[in-house]
Amino acid sequence: MTGTLYIVGLGPGPDGWLTPEASAALAQADVLIGYKPYVDRVPAREGLARHASDNRVEIDRARQALQLAQEGHVVAVVSGGDPGIFAMAATVFEAVEAGDPAWRALDIRVLPGVSAMQAAAARLGAPLGHDFCAISLSDNLKPWDVIARRLEAAAHGDFVIALYNPASTARPQGIHAAFELLRSLKNRETPVAFARAVGRADERIVLATLGTADTALVDMSTLVLIGSSETRFVPRTGAAPWLLTPRTYGAGR
Amino acid sequence: MTGTLYIVGLGPGPDGWLTPEASAALAQADVLIGYKPYVDRVPAREGLARHASDNRVEIDRARQALQLAQEGHVVAVVSGGDPGIFAMAATVFEAVEAGDPAWRALDIRVLPGVSAMQAAAARLGAPLGHDFCAISLSDNLKPWDVIARRLEAAAHGDFVIALYNPASTARPQGIHAAFELLRSLKNRETPVAFARAVGRADERIVLATLGTADTALVDMSTLVLIGSSETRFVPRTGAAPWLLTPRTYGAGR
Repeated sequence: MTGTLYIVGLGPGPDGWLTPEASAALAQADVLIGYKPYVDRVPAREGLARHASDNRVEIDRARQALQLAQEGHVVAVVSGGDPGIFAMAATVFEAVEAGDPAWRALDIRVLPGVSAMQAAAARLGAPLGHDFCAISLSDNLKPWDVIARRLEAAAHGDFVIALYNPASTARPQGIHAAFELLRSLKNRETPVAFARAVGRADERIVLATLGTADTALVDMSTLVLIGSSETRFVPRTGAAPWLLTPRTYGAGR
Repeated sequence: MTGTLYIVGLGPGPDGWLTPEASAALAQADVLIGYKPYVDRVPAREGLARHASDNRVEIDRARQALQLAQEGHVVAVVSGGDPGIFAMAATVFEAVEAGDPAWRALDIRVLPGVSAMQAAAARLGAPLGHDFCAISLSDNLKPWDVIARRLEAAAHGDFVIALYNPASTARPQGIHAAFELLRSLKNRETPVAFARAVGRADERIVLATLGTADTALVDMSTLVLIGSSETRFVPRTGAAPWLLTPRTYGAGR
């Protein structure tokens, strides 16, 4: 008898963003596996074994989870945000593809969650109100020329751009290089937001423009949003402006 | 004394994807406003006025919600999925921008939700495991040449592509034109998925390739996913394959 492998999105942090589906899976699991800060978010309880690991061992973590499910456990692999977006779902299916053929018969379920760009967008207003793209800068698995090509394409297509993992240990200069490239391709007045740790105690929002934004403020907990040509600030009484990408295109020209 | 305006994401349908934050806002509201199918998802209760409207009157709906909040009501504007992604958040801030200056002092809160592409991705495996973009084809507010330019940019950048609103009444031919364009720009063996009404009773998943996919199967409840050059099927025992876009880039060449 084999078990079940849940790949669970915990959302950006607050319990208010943890779906009932994810809560139910966490309540049912007997093994919890993940990067330590995410495992730490799940309260301890009797009957739940916990395997917290470093953030460089995703594929080992996926294999361990598959093996334990194969042995009959109900395993929850936890990711922050949505496990399908720059997180553990891809790692698990890579492990399935390269691993024990028996794993292809396992009951594997991906449980979606609120991703960082959605939390950031909610806090800011409606910056993702029109076409957008999401690009990860943290990638020792992806050559810089692929990132540069995607940034160029995103600028050419006039997408709103969400940058994930903007300041990885492996590539701390990525965010500076990305902004240098985008400044050569887009209007320097384009609105930009650095949304750090949205929903958590250390949340910090910085609004700026592409030309003047200080990329030294960006760390690994920051979601970077860069507007399209339509994105603009909407003044707000008594607080920082909202950020809006309207549904219309070209209306203001 | 003014009220509060919640812009609430209901997720794709099932209660398991409705966040606790959204549930709490719906329990607190005294006015519910939205497109009828979304309003119908919220159970009736005493003290909750309901304003269901057609899907062509978004801006009127937003103004009504702002006015009622201004008068002191706790108003919940509901969207399917995430209100920040091709939904009501942008409409509300457009209305704020063009409307009564007093609205700029209102307490407006966007509550994110699971969007259709995330539900589809969770069901399919990990198709959004790497850089991706989201493009709406339903747009009488956006000229076709903008859509075509973004599809070309998405192909050039080798993004995974999520198409929202692929078969609008205003532009029923959009999905056929989009596929014709993408077939001229991308490998015809690229994996494609049509994920219809994921999580609901009438859910239907179709897997295909870009070259052979039958776009006549696509309706307004369908989320269309088109892979990058790295996206592939992972065979599964006893069921349709999973769809995977791995974290690595170029490893298979």
